[in-house]
Amino acid sequence: MTTRREQTSGESRELILGAAAALFAEKGYRQTTFADVAERSGISRGSIPWHFGSKEGLLLAVLERSVEVVRTGLPEEADLDVLTVGLEGLFAQPTTKLFVTLLVEALEPGSPIHDRYAAIHEALREQCRRWLARFPLPAGLPVDALAVALIGAGIGIHQQWLVAPDKVDMTGALAAVRFLVAGAVSEG
Amino acid sequence: MTTRREQTSGESRELILGAAAALFAEKGYRQTTFADVAERSGISRGSIPWHFGSKEGLLLAVLERSVEVVRTGLPEEADLDVLTVGLEGLFAQPTTKLFVTLLVEALEPGSPIHDRYAAIHEALREQCRRWLARFPLPAGLPVDALAVALIGAGIGIHQQWLVAPDKVDMTGALAAVRFLVAGAVSEG
Repeated sequence: MTTRREQTSGESRELILGAAAALFAEKGYRQTTFADVAERSGISRGSIPWHFGSKEGLLLAVLERSVEVVRTGLPEEADLDVLTVGLEGLFAQPTTKLFVTLLVEALEPGSPIHDRYAAIHEALREQCRRWLARFPLPAGLPVDALAVALIGAGIGIHQQWLVAPDKVDMTGALAAVRFLVAGAVSEG
Repeated sequence: MTTRREQTSGESRELILGAAAALFAEKGYRQTTFADVAERSGISRGSIPWHFGSKEGLLLAVLERSVEVVRTGLPEEADLDVLTVGLEGLFAQPTTKLFVTLLVEALEPGSPIHDRYAAIHEALREQCRRWLARFPLPAGLPVDALAVALIGAGIGIHQQWLVAPDKVDMTGALAAVRFLVAGAVSEG
């Protein structure tokens, strides 16, 4: 049973996350302060560290929520075309850029956010493996390896597009991945 | 004709770059100072900003040199197996991690290093396009799009492995990409 207090706490958390995601996208992560998030969300400034610890913790929670939205938003039985269009929409969202912001922090020796960042990558691979499980894969193409390769292609295409949106054709690159996958898996 | 002065300047530059690459890999980029680089290279501390401007400029030059090493080190007529093994060796080099360090900086609005970072991505894609040019590609798989997808897969596999070296099988993931490419292009 959820008590009234827990419910309110959960609601505050959601309001803070929504405001932070919008502000990070609009102003950038570095330029956004707890005071900005408090003003936008209507939640007192002091509550934010109570919920999320640090600004880094807040950013991680925003990322974890976007991964959850992706995981629940893409139907597991989606075909390749639906997936490709879904990914393209996802990549164009300003919050997706935040994945890159934390990567460098996650790679610092002894980083406090490393394990949660690794868990986000693992959640994406797990989603990919579940999607691939419907298809008979050819011998020589293990599902674990293919999932790393496909999530990798997504990460790397997104980053090239972020760096040079005018030069990198994201739609074309995702279509190329779609082509390669379609050639290897036999659609049920 | 190269004058004696230019030659010496070029030699100093190389000594600084070699020392910086080793130190960035050993101590990390943030922990390395110009004084460390001067000591290791035997070049006076004051020469370093003269050659490279800032520490960021030094890091960029280190990255540009590693890309050049990759470009010249991989034979253009290499087959898929040679390429896969070459990439794996490259990814395991400590300097390769430095690509990630600068990505976040390159994505800041108005970043002074953005254009050089974009040029590194473009050089990798160009190398890939040249490699692909030998093969007749199937209709529906344009070489530009495939190059973005393959360089993307390389970037994204490398990053997943950096984040979780014990969980991500880099060799297997590269073999999966190799499998997908071999299925799509007909080796000459």
